[in-house]
Amino acid sequence: MFSHIKDLQFEAKPDGPDALFARRLQEVLGGKWGELTVANQYLFQGWSCRLPGKYKDLLLDVGTEEMGHVEMICTMIARLLEGAPQNLHEAAADDNPMLAAIYSGENPAQFIHAGGGPLPVDSNGVPWNGSFITASGNLMADFQLNVTAEAQGRLQVARLFHMTDDPGVKQMLRFLLARDTMHQNMWMAALQQLKDDGLEDMPIPDAFPDAEQENEFAYQLLNFSAGEDSAEGRWASGPAPDGKGTFSYDPAPAAHAPAPVLPPGDPRLYGTPPPTPGGIIGAVKDALS
Amino acid sequence: MFSHIKDLQFEAKPDGPDALFARRLQEVLGGKWGELTVANQYLFQGWSCRLPGKYKDLLLDVGTEEMGHVEMICTMIARLLEGAPQNLHEAAADDNPMLAAIYSGENPAQFIHAGGGPLPVDSNGVPWNGSFITASGNLMADFQLNVTAEAQGRLQVARLFHMTDDPGVKQMLRFLLARDTMHQNMWMAALQQLKDDGLEDMPIPDAFPDAEQENEFAYQLLNFSAGEDSAEGRWASGPAPDGKGTFSYDPAPAAHAPAPVLPPGDPRLYGTPPPTPGGIIGAVKDALS
Amino acid sequence: MFSHIKDLQFEAKPDGPDALFARRLQEVLGGKWGELTVANQYLFQGWSCRLPGKYKDLLLDVGTEEMGHVEMICTMIARLLEGAPQNLHEAAADDNPMLAAIYSGENPAQFIHAGGGPLPVDSNGVPWNGSFITASGNLMADFQLNVTAEAQGRLQVARLFHMTDDPGVKQMLRFLLARDTMHQNMWMAALQQLKDDGLEDMPIPDAFPDAEQENEFAYQLLNFSAGEDSAEGRWASGPAPDGKGTFSYDPAPAAHAPAPVLPPGDPRLYGTPPPTPGGIIGAVKDALS
Amino acid sequence: MFSHIKDLQFEAKPDGPDALFARRLQEVLGGKWGELTVANQYLFQGWSCRLPGKYKDLLLDVGTEEMGHVEMICTMIARLLEGAPQNLHEAAADDNPMLAAIYSGENPAQFIHAGGGPLPVDSNGVPWNGSFITASGNLMADFQLNVTAEAQGRLQVARLFHMTDDPGVKQMLRFLLARDTMHQNMWMAALQQLKDDGLEDMPIPDAFPDAEQENEFAYQLLNFSAGEDSAEGRWASGPAPDGKGTFSYDPAPAAHAPAPVLPPGDPRLYGTPPPTPGGIIGAVKDALS
Amino acid sequence: MFSHIKDLQFEAKPDGPDALFARRLQEVLGGKWGELTVANQYLFQGWSCRLPGKYKDLLLDVGTEEMGHVEMICTMIARLLEGAPQNLHEAAADDNPMLAAIYSGENPAQFIHAGGGPLPVDSNGVPWNGSFITASGNLMADFQLNVTAEAQGRLQVARLFHMTDDPGVKQMLRFLLARDTMHQNMWMAALQQLKDDGLEDMPIPDAFPDAEQENEFAYQLLNFSAGEDSAEGRWASGPAPDGKGTFSYDPAPAAHAPAPVLPPGDPRLYGTPPPTPGGIIGAVKDALS
Amino acid sequence: MFSHIKDLQFEAKPDGPDALFARRLQEVLGGKWGELTVANQYLFQGWSCRLPGKYKDLLLDVGTEEMGHVEMICTMIARLLEGAPQNLHEAAADDNPMLAAIYSGENPAQFIHAGGGPLPVDSNGVPWNGSFITASGNLMADFQLNVTAEAQGRLQVARLFHMTDDPGVKQMLRFLLARDTMHQNMWMAALQQLKDDGLEDMPIPDAFPDAEQENEFAYQLLNFSAGEDSAEGRWASGPAPDGKGTFSYDPAPAAHAPAPVLPPGDPRLYGTPPPTPGGIIGAVKDALS
Repeated sequence: MFSHIKDLQFEAKPDGPDALFARRLQEVLGGKWGELTVANQYLFQGWSCRLPGKYKDLLLDVGTEEMGHVEMICTMIARLLEGAPQNLHEAAADDNPMLAAIYSGENPAQFIHAGGGPLPVDSNGVPWNGSFITASGNLMADFQLNVTAEAQGRLQVARLFHMTDDPGVKQMLRFLLARDTMHQNMWMAALQQLKDDGLEDMPIPDAFPDAEQENEFAYQLLNFSAGEDSAEGRWASGPAPDGKGTFSYDPAPAAHAPAPVLPPGDPRLYGTPPPTPGGIIGAVKDALS
Repeated sequence: MFSHIKDLQFEAKPDGPDALFARRLQEVLGGKWGELTVANQYLFQGWSCRLPGKYKDLLLDVGTEEMGHVEMICTMIARLLEGAPQNLHEAAADDNPMLAAIYSGENPAQFIHAGGGPLPVDSNGVPWNGSFITASGNLMADFQLNVTAEAQGRLQVARLFHMTDDPGVKQMLRFLLARDTMHQNMWMAALQQLKDDGLEDMPIPDAFPDAEQENEFAYQLLNFSAGEDSAEGRWASGPAPDGKGTFSYDPAPAAHAPAPVLPPGDPRLYGTPPPTPGGIIGAVKDALS
Repeated sequence: MFSHIKDLQFEAKPDGPDALFARRLQEVLGGKWGELTVANQYLFQGWSCRLPGKYKDLLLDVGTEEMGHVEMICTMIARLLEGAPQNLHEAAADDNPMLAAIYSGENPAQFIHAGGGPLPVDSNGVPWNGSFITASGNLMADFQLNVTAEAQGRLQVARLFHMTDDPGVKQMLRFLLARDTMHQNMWMAALQQLKDDGLEDMPIPDAFPDAEQENEFAYQLLNFSAGEDSAEGRWASGPAPDGKGTFSYDPAPAAHAPAPVLPPGDPRLYGTPPPTPGGIIGAVKDALS
Repeated sequence: MFSHIKDLQFEAKPDGPDALFARRLQEVLGGKWGELTVANQYLFQGWSCRLPGKYKDLLLDVGTEEMGHVEMICTMIARLLEGAPQNLHEAAADDNPMLAAIYSGENPAQFIHAGGGPLPVDSNGVPWNGSFITASGNLMADFQLNVTAEAQGRLQVARLFHMTDDPGVKQMLRFLLARDTMHQNMWMAALQQLKDDGLEDMPIPDAFPDAEQENEFAYQLLNFSAGEDSAEGRWASGPAPDGKGTFSYDPAPAAHAPAPVLPPGDPRLYGTPPPTPGGIIGAVKDALS
Repeated sequence: MFSHIKDLQFEAKPDGPDALFARRLQEVLGGKWGELTVANQYLFQGWSCRLPGKYKDLLLDVGTEEMGHVEMICTMIARLLEGAPQNLHEAAADDNPMLAAIYSGENPAQFIHAGGGPLPVDSNGVPWNGSFITASGNLMADFQLNVTAEAQGRLQVARLFHMTDDPGVKQMLRFLLARDTMHQNMWMAALQQLKDDGLEDMPIPDAFPDAEQENEFAYQLLNFSAGEDSAEGRWASGPAPDGKGTFSYDPAPAAHAPAPVLPPGDPRLYGTPPPTPGGIIGAVKDALS
Repeated sequence: MFSHIKDLQFEAKPDGPDALFARRLQEVLGGKWGELTVANQYLFQGWSCRLPGKYKDLLLDVGTEEMGHVEMICTMIARLLEGAPQNLHEAAADDNPMLAAIYSGENPAQFIHAGGGPLPVDSNGVPWNGSFITASGNLMADFQLNVTAEAQGRLQVARLFHMTDDPGVKQMLRFLLARDTMHQNMWMAALQQLKDDGLEDMPIPDAFPDAEQENEFAYQLLNFSAGEDSAEGRWASGPAPDGKGTFSYDPAPAAHAPAPVLPPGDPRLYGTPPPTPGGIIGAVKDALS
């Protein structure tokens, strides 16, 4: 259960309107690596976490914080949209090509649909969707994703930092950069903690029995693109990071099995060519008996 | 440019048909963490890589290999769909409830749309889409994502391994598990290589000037969910993994700035309440002059 | 079954081309609250209506009319796109920054994909989709949605009215505004009619037995955001609109049950931590016996 | 800014597992009218609300409460998935056709992707997306939508109530039904409050000048579907609900203007037929001069 | 403008309910090749058609007819859903595994969302969307698509024909098969008519000047997959169908230009490696001067 | 299995940057008719092809070639984005309105998300998705689609050709135009080859028994849009292209059956009106007995 207070986590106001930047800022609100993603991802991971204690608490702490970041960016976007020109006539009134550029570079739905406010969409107006998040039940797999999410997020905020001159906007971005620094470090520490606690290890999932995988392919780099530059990296020789194998390098693709030939399909599917009539239904039953 | 040979990278045939499992197998073909994702992700990362040599070659090697995994799973799905019952009458013919269960648990579009073949969709029939991949131009951010992709992928294959008894299917999954082991290790090694080569470091992007972020928030865990379990992890005290700061813990949320009050919007947007008439257009012009 | 006549329901031509406005006009064609939504929503509601007579007829009347609005807007968009500059060179020919702004603010797909015509997309080029409509089988729930659809639609048309100076376009918008006025009123009247006819009432669905809901929570405002401003509205005290209860106000969140602890998951799902091995399959069987 | 406590708003546990119902319950979590929709919708409306005081507080109160409903349903789904059979062999172990039916009616991604947990998707596995919510800046238009959201939501919960026999699940649904009762009433009261406060009225947006719409079409029912049953409703005669007009009925479609003929398109778009060569670019410039 | 009569174009009733088949039938209603696609596609093509006369009339005739097919299938689905079991208890009441299979193979949203009615979705519950249709402005390109749409549609209806034993359903399918036969023939005839009328020819768009394409690659089959089976077809030698060239066959891929090397990116995008600092902004200005 | 060489199939470099055109070029990379579509479509058709020999080889040849086209366009987009202005200040530095127009007409995600590189999206930033491709198992239905794909693709490239003045970009487009010419011809030849080989014929699927369709409707044009212009085409009289029927024309819509009346729905679905209580569940059981 949640409660809300009306203060922002970090207060910053723009010096002036900028509808073009407001469209761009949507990327870190409703884009794949935006705040809606991390907020929902950490909360779902927390709710699905079957291990009470520090991991579950951490996920709910940070997911709840990120909901506050959603709020901060929504508020900033609403402020950046204030006073934007509403038509070409206004945009042209000043003989200022920049004003026209801002008008034509807007997200029109921020005005027509949202009345001058934020939308749960990315910088092109494509809606955020639930496939952006993953809560797999395996904390190490998910913490890896969380490191990435904070890295991609910080990268995007850093890029946006160079796309505006507004001091107030820059101030908010500085705060977000700092939190992304914390969160990158935090998920890295959590990965180490999982190992220290003996809960999971590489290769994920570590509990899958080694004997069940085709181990001859498990530490071998295969060369599928012309040139052998890739043989020069750490990944082509020496010990593998999981401490369980040694990298090798195969300059040619693996030896091939004979080419697969598919049998004719069911006649009632009208594939080409029409298969020989006659029952293949029985095969299903045999397979199950 | 690519060329194709008709052999599969690893040949495995199912012992018998299983349309229900064929639907499930779609998850690792066209789901968020399926083969279409890793193939396209590594290729786009390779094409966008502005650094010739071992990293670009590696990305194209592995992206090209993954296209061959797409092919393997497509072929396996086509084979698993052979001889499936086409209607309830057939499914009921044997008084075998399992046959009925298979029929009702199918993806109908594999028959109606694809004529008994694979589709670029997940285990629920939702189409694969381009937002599943990221090629950010920052190799460390992307290699972190690649570790995750292989970890989530191996986790899903391991789960599928327990969902079938078919020896041929299991054989293919064993091969995929092994390649995912390699690829997890490989991207971990590549992360270390980037650091060794002095190209990137944490927090990503390392080149962003430290002085520009709000450093007081950069190593501090904030407590937003009741209880202080999260204070017990490595992420709440001690040195941070980036070697640049020391974790601290703030049991209460950060001090709050005054609550934001939004001004009235543009009257032509018909928000509530109707704002005072009069020009706010000028503010745009002032801001730009 | 439908028939078509080639006249538009209301004829209006633009005075001149305006590709930038043509992109914006897409919002009320293929956006969430556009004409494709209302046309399909009312027709699906009509086809699913199990009550012959005035309600079914009304739904089919208005759904069919809205198909004609789709046609009007499609035609207007095609006309607004005529003669648009096809490249930057043309857009720059006149040293008119407005022409450049129009060019850069276009929806490129209206030219590349549609050859200078409309698309079933919104003002950002995102395709219309079937989840925009609802036909629930409960007429009162759906008529409420229809009131909203006409209110949001009229709001968007009113906003667009200020985004153009073209007399012909404004003429078409005036007609659409009038029809939205009618349709808002009409669905409000239909809501009242449903009550008068004794078919449905609040809370929807009225037929659900009162005794089956947790009535102590059915008329109580809970305070989850700091501050008690919300206690000042009609919704916090006095009789509720359904005539069946009296509003109350609880300044604190409801009393809490003990925190939930999830048991370990199935070992074959590789969650964290690895659960105690041993059968939980039996529980399914027990629950069903 | 938000804070979280780990108690659920209302605690209820299922008596046993039911993976088939867990899939269905996703509809009110991540479907169009599910809890993710109302939570995000009310919060975005609150953040975009430019009117401090009771309306803004109410939106944030209820949006925050709904986040707690998301949490309740996520937790319930995780519990319902415990102990589900992981393959056909297990599902068949008991000769219980119901067990097989449950297995084949599952959402496979709840296991393969989410490891036995909830997903932000609907009952068919289609992801929740941002277009499900609207925050238009016009409170009356949005409160109408909120009434609908609670009506459609309560309708869906009522239907789900008949799809399970589990006492714990039913208990949670009883609570949700009660809150939906409250919220339907609350938004109805808020609509009235807006009128009482003189902030908005029908037809929405009331501030749009009456003289600018084509008033002859503003209160007239047009007959587009054969039969005149629709003339029998309140919407065809008598005073309109907005108090500003009187309904009339036109049995025939409105008189038609001449059929529109589109001119040939730009030759570089390769439409059919090839248009007369020659400049239409000038028209753009003329229109803007 | 449209008008509607309440008769179906072809009346057929199912003998009994079948919720499992009702889910499958959604494919030809709201799937990629379903009736919503052809109805909207032909209408948009008609509205965008800049050539008055027989082509425009044909498109509007057939698009309008297809709206009636949408209606027929919606009605059939509503009927097939009547009396479906609403929970596992009912489904198990008869010890009939088929009843359980039907229950678990349903689309749950047809009940929870649509109250026992059709939805604008495919057989997996994925919503229809606007990208399914194309109206390019080039009639020959679009009529080719229309042939395909009718071919894929007839193929799907033929497959569905074998998935039911219900005489009433089969009767409706027989009618749809016949109309698809007509429409395949009709669009083939229309392709020929366009050539006869001298409006368009292959390769589409014929009006693009031959001299502007790289003609040495215009009639050559390139061999990119091992084996030379593809050299045995009509497409590898002899006259090409457009009458303008002769097919040739190149067993090896085309000669290659040197490998592309991308220059370093903008430093503010934080790609790897960090590029040499210094201005590349000037290049944009130079290119435009 | 695939292998990759680093040369492009056809090398072309832009003379200078053009971020606005780079956004437009995305249409033929990740749009509905772009290279990702044809590459994946032909490969899936090839993998699903159950007929070894020239057809399967052709599909894999061309699908593999198209992967190389994806690579070419990705590389071109990365080059066109080099040196683009990163903010309004830079865009305004030169008093060049064209520079501002380019800035505001960019796809912002190409910078924020992709760091100055391509994305798997269309010209509006909407992600490519798997529903863009079809591999139906029926080669004639699919080859028809392939002709269309190449026709729509060539049309789009021809339109783009007029949207740029850059000689290097035009050079690449000339190559793509030539390959689209080949591929249109090739799939037309393949359609003829299928007939010559006796594998399939019109109407597709030819193997569906003629006696099972309602033949009286199979060659008749129905007039649903006012005016009889459509009677003047080849499709209204004379022999049909399939050689099996003769076109006829029915000026009036087909005779109508009585209007359908739906029975009341299940009471637990809360439709309007509430149906008579009492069992309709039994009907399901009867239908299955």
